[in-house]
Amino acid sequence: MARQPLNFASDNVVGASDKVLQAIVAANGGALASYGGDPITKRVEQRLKDLFETDCATYLVTTGTAANALSIACLAPPHCSVLCHEEAHAIDDECGAPEFVMGGGKLVGVPGPGAKLTRKAVLDHLAAEPGGTRRPPLRGLSLSQATESGTVYTVEEIAAVAGTAHANGMHVHMDGARFANALLSLGCTPAEMTWKAGIDILSFGGTKNGCLMAEAVVFFNRSLAEDFAFKRKRAGQTVSKGRLLAAQFDAYLDGDHWLALARQANSLATKLSRGLAAIPGLRPAWPTQANEVFCIMPETLFQQLQADGVLLYDWTDKSLPRDNRLKKGEVVTRLICSFATPEKDVDALLKLARSRAG
Amino acid sequence: MARQPLNFASDNVVGASDKVLQAIVAANGGALASYGGDPITKRVEQRLKDLFETDCATYLVTTGTAANALSIACLAPPHCSVLCHEEAHAIDDECGAPEFVMGGGKLVGVPGPGAKLTRKAVLDHLAAEPGGTRRPPLRGLSLSQATESGTVYTVEEIAAVAGTAHANGMHVHMDGARFANALLSLGCTPAEMTWKAGIDILSFGGTKNGCLMAEAVVFFNRSLAEDFAFKRKRAGQTVSKGRLLAAQFDAYLDGDHWLALARQANSLATKLSRGLAAIPGLRPAWPTQANEVFCIMPETLFQQLQADGVLLYDWTDKSLPRDNRLKKGEVVTRLICSFATPEKDVDALLKLARSRAG
Amino acid sequence: MARQPLNFASDNVVGASDKVLQAIVAANGGALASYGGDPITKRVEQRLKDLFETDCATYLVTTGTAANALSIACLAPPHCSVLCHEEAHAIDDECGAPEFVMGGGKLVGVPGPGAKLTRKAVLDHLAAEPGGTRRPPLRGLSLSQATESGTVYTVEEIAAVAGTAHANGMHVHMDGARFANALLSLGCTPAEMTWKAGIDILSFGGTKNGCLMAEAVVFFNRSLAEDFAFKRKRAGQTVSKGRLLAAQFDAYLDGDHWLALARQANSLATKLSRGLAAIPGLRPAWPTQANEVFCIMPETLFQQLQADGVLLYDWTDKSLPRDNRLKKGEVVTRLICSFATPEKDVDALLKLARSRAG
Amino acid sequence: MARQPLNFASDNVVGASDKVLQAIVAANGGALASYGGDPITKRVEQRLKDLFETDCATYLVTTGTAANALSIACLAPPHCSVLCHEEAHAIDDECGAPEFVMGGGKLVGVPGPGAKLTRKAVLDHLAAEPGGTRRPPLRGLSLSQATESGTVYTVEEIAAVAGTAHANGMHVHMDGARFANALLSLGCTPAEMTWKAGIDILSFGGTKNGCLMAEAVVFFNRSLAEDFAFKRKRAGQTVSKGRLLAAQFDAYLDGDHWLALARQANSLATKLSRGLAAIPGLRPAWPTQANEVFCIMPETLFQQLQADGVLLYDWTDKSLPRDNRLKKGEVVTRLICSFATPEKDVDALLKLARSRAG
Repeated sequence: MARQPLNFASDNVVGASDKVLQAIVAANGGALASYGGDPITKRVEQRLKDLFETDCATYLVTTGTAANALSIACLAPPHCSVLCHEEAHAIDDECGAPEFVMGGGKLVGVPGPGAKLTRKAVLDHLAAEPGGTRRPPLRGLSLSQATESGTVYTVEEIAAVAGTAHANGMHVHMDGARFANALLSLGCTPAEMTWKAGIDILSFGGTKNGCLMAEAVVFFNRSLAEDFAFKRKRAGQTVSKGRLLAAQFDAYLDGDHWLALARQANSLATKLSRGLAAIPGLRPAWPTQANEVFCIMPETLFQQLQADGVLLYDWTDKSLPRDNRLKKGEVVTRLICSFATPEKDVDALLKLARSRAG
Repeated sequence: MARQPLNFASDNVVGASDKVLQAIVAANGGALASYGGDPITKRVEQRLKDLFETDCATYLVTTGTAANALSIACLAPPHCSVLCHEEAHAIDDECGAPEFVMGGGKLVGVPGPGAKLTRKAVLDHLAAEPGGTRRPPLRGLSLSQATESGTVYTVEEIAAVAGTAHANGMHVHMDGARFANALLSLGCTPAEMTWKAGIDILSFGGTKNGCLMAEAVVFFNRSLAEDFAFKRKRAGQTVSKGRLLAAQFDAYLDGDHWLALARQANSLATKLSRGLAAIPGLRPAWPTQANEVFCIMPETLFQQLQADGVLLYDWTDKSLPRDNRLKKGEVVTRLICSFATPEKDVDALLKLARSRAG
Repeated sequence: MARQPLNFASDNVVGASDKVLQAIVAANGGALASYGGDPITKRVEQRLKDLFETDCATYLVTTGTAANALSIACLAPPHCSVLCHEEAHAIDDECGAPEFVMGGGKLVGVPGPGAKLTRKAVLDHLAAEPGGTRRPPLRGLSLSQATESGTVYTVEEIAAVAGTAHANGMHVHMDGARFANALLSLGCTPAEMTWKAGIDILSFGGTKNGCLMAEAVVFFNRSLAEDFAFKRKRAGQTVSKGRLLAAQFDAYLDGDHWLALARQANSLATKLSRGLAAIPGLRPAWPTQANEVFCIMPETLFQQLQADGVLLYDWTDKSLPRDNRLKKGEVVTRLICSFATPEKDVDALLKLARSRAG
Repeated sequence: MARQPLNFASDNVVGASDKVLQAIVAANGGALASYGGDPITKRVEQRLKDLFETDCATYLVTTGTAANALSIACLAPPHCSVLCHEEAHAIDDECGAPEFVMGGGKLVGVPGPGAKLTRKAVLDHLAAEPGGTRRPPLRGLSLSQATESGTVYTVEEIAAVAGTAHANGMHVHMDGARFANALLSLGCTPAEMTWKAGIDILSFGGTKNGCLMAEAVVFFNRSLAEDFAFKRKRAGQTVSKGRLLAAQFDAYLDGDHWLALARQANSLATKLSRGLAAIPGLRPAWPTQANEVFCIMPETLFQQLQADGVLLYDWTDKSLPRDNRLKKGEVVTRLICSFATPEKDVDALLKLARSRAG
């Protein structure tokens, strides 16, 4: 059998953690109420209330795109627009799902270093609006934690952006596809990183961090959850054998399993990032704050690594800070570590990069 | 532990078959391309080409509602309408998902005994259309096989309806949530029951018959599949760890496993149906041709069985044939057998019904 | 020049009244703020507040279909459904516009004699709903005054239906394409026929009764008008030279011109209805209560009149009361009188019908 | 009576030309078929075939927003995206109407001097697309003639952009809200500026240039017009008394009236532009090629003119060419001349500006 390549392409190229997989197996037997009426789903709902220390409403769905699109569609009615960073997954990578599920609403992207929204960027955008009815009213804001540049908003940054949004008539969504990775990075509580900082709705990711396919839409602002059971059904996201989703989350949250998985991923990413930065001619594009490593390197090296079979991507330089622009011949590359990335693969990649860069 | 109730509520109250579950486990390890680029998905696509003896295009999705809504949205653009039986799952049980995914199209329900569309009903409906632009143009037709009354269209009936539809500018979809059950009932080939009879798109169900969550949209008319990868993504149905869906279908189709499961369900349903019909005062609402049993019984008996803890539903009498109307005090009841229904539960229910009816 | 045919096809086959036309001419000169910021629009808004004796919010649009679709889309968000009579213009004649503007919502039609919704029909429909999330939640109700059968709800009937709707979580819309004709028939005030009876939003028709193209959406429940300026713009219904719409309404409402026009139409319709009913073998399908005459006649006579060049339509018999069903060889016909129908045409038609029926 | 202000705010602040107004009056009498079945509409359709020297299909609608939104929705199905300049009216000023009418599609804006798309900008955008299904497929392109910067594409520029679009699977729409003004500027034929250069669908504007409210959607590519009668109806744009729209266009096109109106507007704009450019400290933002004047002036002068009661707007500097950027204290202003702008107002404004700038 051929050797597996060094795979840093994404955190969705592996299956579930053993614990999550065993939970699927264990939940399979016997007759249970369908469509989320089962006791495992109830338990997950309670677990999330405990985790977030509040009476949140939780709905399980099958994909991150569905979680984001449905969440964003709850921020504002179809004639409105929703602000996000111009590189946000929702606006740039989900094939128009949020606009579709909103019913023809608009996402509006604003630029910013490290793929972060800032209070100032939001206010500048609002100040430039023409007034009248030329543009759809801005009623929602979506931010990604961790961001598409692998950076993590501080709690204060979230609160500043969310507070500005609320003060201007917007509800706030957090795309938490890599929520666990970001949380560990900050060392705060889930409550502090979300509703205490002004988040109304959270896409709480499971798939990228150890589940096989499980995402949750968590409503801290329960008024936005009205009729969500109907909205989820209408979007084809109400799973009949709901135990499949629930069992994954049940195991994922049990005994801080989700944090252990993210800790492993973050730790390897940090090692990888430091190792790459120590190679002459290489430097971080943005600080590695979660499990994604963005490294500026010579394009020749990037091409050599691809030729060596390493799976990694080049990336846009749009959100580089002013003091860290690409020089001629350089590219931004993205390398992701998951809970399942073998540490030896990190070591092998570093060794290879050092030898190729030399 | 409390005894499990006699559960005839649905075929989605149980988990996956052992074989399907083991396939999920077996597929979990190692890195694979995401979003359906993995080899298991490719194998499933080939399996379906072999099964249907044609070069069909297959896309896996997570729920039957998603499969139907996406399929129907491929029949016709948003300004159109799609004909179906007035009790079709798509129009009556999916919370508006097809209309939503179409983008504001209309489903139009027509009546008919046994929840079947007929050539005559379609032609009568067309003849009554006012012309002009008062109503959305009818460009699609969706039929369910097996139907919502547990009946099965013959191949000739499908061909008559589909042929009439095509002759009048409509594309044709089959909701095959219980495809396997219907196929066994007819004893024909999958090709004969679908594209050879004029079906353009099929919702090929897995979940109700042994999978945990897996449905396929199968395009026999490949021109209707244009851009479907984008449409699926936009609907939040492109699963990142695609192996989860593919592994289920791989095992489901392997060695005719899916037919063995359906045979078991159908066989128990037949036994149940005959047993009930033999009880004085009870009779079939419609013939039991797949795994759903619809029985006319005194309402008092229905209530007694519910009080006894039996899980079953009462049902609409709308599609009863003229010569089998409800008499005063009677109700239609629905009882479903799945691949996992214990035969002893069928026996127990029959014994209970006999004693309560006596 | 050829003689004009006897035209009873519709109330939209003639142009504007002289007074309305002159108002368009008079408003044409000079520079005025666009998009409804002009003083004529403001005056119309005030006129409607005075007319309805309440602080309603008014938005002018170009067509009745747009008025209905936008109004219905304000009753309920896209994932919901809206109840109406199965023959309502909104569900049956607007080519899916309400479903489109809602963003994929559903209209649900219920039957009833004389094209009227009743408290009982609404309650029966609600009682038959299955619960759960199988169907979109019912959040709105739309009724037509006058109805599609030419009948007029009494104030008490409106209040009964609207009260039932409100008690069950629905907002209520009135399609008032023939509002003036209905109002005169009842002899009540505009306030009594609308908000005092529970109407939240009114499509206030002008076009069929003397305008060239002008309809108003009137919000009595101002909370439903939130963002309507944006919704109207997004629907392509915000007219840049808004004076065109406003001038028509200004003249239409001035000095009870609108009522004078409707009085003329109703009066001719009554004369026509009585004259037809006096012909042996002919009888009313429903009582003539506004400006539409529905007459049951032998199909041979209907065909003869068409052959004679009379413009009239045959009509569905779906909403005939049980005690007035069609006999073999009979059809329902519709004949409409407008403000501009020449009385001599009514006389000529009656003479012709008498001679042909003889 | 107060003196009218010097009004250069827009070309929609005045009513119709005398000839167009008289046509409305003349068409008012008598009974005519409704919904566009009247002979005036037929005549307009033929006039447009003659004008464009091809068998185009024409549909009249009420607003420019409706014309654009419906046209764009015919370029591509709802899951797609459509390219336009980032300042295009369709993406920036129509409150999301195109996205709504598309059914959740996306407009994608690209930058470019003078609000023009170029072949290079289109190719650069395509080259940067990531592939896969992350973004909706690009299937349409919309350009504005004249542009939002008051510039006019040459026939060669249109052909280059449209050819590139077609070569990459896109259909092409022209927003011709100021079609007449642009056509005169080029001195070519309507056919040369549209279908001969690759335009599939045209929003042919009447309202800004002498009509009261009339726009036409003209399909040169008739395959894109399929079902358009239904689509227009569903969008609430099928006017019952269709003579209103048709009469305007009939007079507008008769005897080159439309060109005479545009010639007058363009001529005044040229005079205004030259006069302003001759004032020290003022210069054109972009060349004045139609009836819109964009002038760079000191912000103090802009504010003084506003204080003097002149109606004009400041404007974005986004599409200024690199060699004509704003200096500190400068702003871009927009002044529009219509067919009805009094020449003495141009003279008065120039005099005022000279005195205030001095």
